[in-house]
Amino acid sequence: MRNIKLVIAYDGTDYKGWQFQDNGLTVQEMMERALGRVLGRKHRVHGASRTDSGVHALGQVVGFKTSHTIPVEKLPLALNPVLPETISVISAEEVDADFHVRFSAVSKKYTYHIFNSRQRDPFIEKYSWRVPYRLDIALMRKESRALLGKHDFKSFQAKDKIERGAVRTISGISIRKAGKNVHVTVKGDGFLYNMVRNVVGTLVDIGRGYLPPGSMKAILEKKDRVHAGPTAPAKGLFLVEVRY
Amino acid sequence: MRNIKLVIAYDGTDYKGWQFQDNGLTVQEMMERALGRVLGRKHRVHGASRTDSGVHALGQVVGFKTSHTIPVEKLPLALNPVLPETISVISAEEVDADFHVRFSAVSKKYTYHIFNSRQRDPFIEKYSWRVPYRLDIALMRKESRALLGKHDFKSFQAKDKIERGAVRTISGISIRKAGKNVHVTVKGDGFLYNMVRNVVGTLVDIGRGYLPPGSMKAILEKKDRVHAGPTAPAKGLFLVEVRY
Repeated sequence: MRNIKLVIAYDGTDYKGWQFQDNGLTVQEMMERALGRVLGRKHRVHGASRTDSGVHALGQVVGFKTSHTIPVEKLPLALNPVLPETISVISAEEVDADFHVRFSAVSKKYTYHIFNSRQRDPFIEKYSWRVPYRLDIALMRKESRALLGKHDFKSFQAKDKIERGAVRTISGISIRKAGKNVHVTVKGDGFLYNMVRNVVGTLVDIGRGYLPPGSMKAILEKKDRVHAGPTAPAKGLFLVEVRY
Repeated sequence: MRNIKLVIAYDGTDYKGWQFQDNGLTVQEMMERALGRVLGRKHRVHGASRTDSGVHALGQVVGFKTSHTIPVEKLPLALNPVLPETISVISAEEVDADFHVRFSAVSKKYTYHIFNSRQRDPFIEKYSWRVPYRLDIALMRKESRALLGKHDFKSFQAKDKIERGAVRTISGISIRKAGKNVHVTVKGDGFLYNMVRNVVGTLVDIGRGYLPPGSMKAILEKKDRVHAGPTAPAKGLFLVEVRY
């Protein structure tokens, strides 16, 4: 069996996330349908990240095994015409048999888009969280450093999806401002459900002065979700890159 | 009665255009609903341009008359929360009684977004026409100049919506390229249904070498829609500005 790795981008607006759901279309389902049409039979695909409903991807990694002989470089051109316009295959390569898109990943990078504006904009807001308050970006940057390194991120896990281990290592976090756009980029070895969105919600609460300086470190140490800020909306989150 | 002028932006993806339709939601309907909620009763609104189904606006102008005493500067803040996220009021001002958003307009500016790429991109494609062929931009620029001035634009009118007079004056046309993005901006005193999209479809046919040099002038002179290129998709078209 050949082991194939695809890099794909998608606009998650209209999908119930990556993984199969009973109540709506998912990116995984659309990828399997497209592969079925191109390769003539069903293939199970795996994603590096189970992005939530409404979350986007610029570099999701998808893997599947096949005995089909299609040249790997033909796959993007064959798949894209049978995929909806909201999903695009960027590249394809054949990888070693022991490579697994999820278990072989060493780091993932997410970027969260904040639109810091009192003025609405229908085009920017579709892919960002509009925050109308003045934000102290320098303070947000300073506070965000408390997250760097290996920690138990229980305070930032999803309320309804408790995972067994909550220890993760964050290797980088940056906050860039360009006009009214504020982009929070977080890189780590793995993330809990909603973790990036909960971190961003907390950073915004700090940046607007609703939580005092020192809050990020204090919240992290409390290991309890009730202390963190709100969950930032899914539409502002982009899975940017998965590294192996 | 006070005469109010609003400038609004909208993502036209999910609307059946500006004007009321039986078969789906329109921006005009959403504006009237929002005004009804803010001002307490129904107001008829007019748009400077009857943008087609799927066409976007960065600067559509909307007018209505009211006896309500709300301060005009409060209107954007009052309307935006009751409008869908896909529609945004940018500004509001009170104007003279004889001002009419459509009849007082002296020029309109539209920009058409082409994404000149073999590679798909779900985020760019949502608001552009992806053209996978090599385009001769210099030739497109040269050919586009045939449209400048006062002409009978019958060759570029919609097949199914014939208007009485097809004479319009185009005062500016520019084609800018930034990476794979090609933006065609057309300014004129008025446009026929689908005129900008038919011009862009013809320009692309010329740019990719499907129609020979000199075609734009020849097609214009034939005054018959059958000679022009295809109608470029609505999703790439933006109403940018209306001048008075």
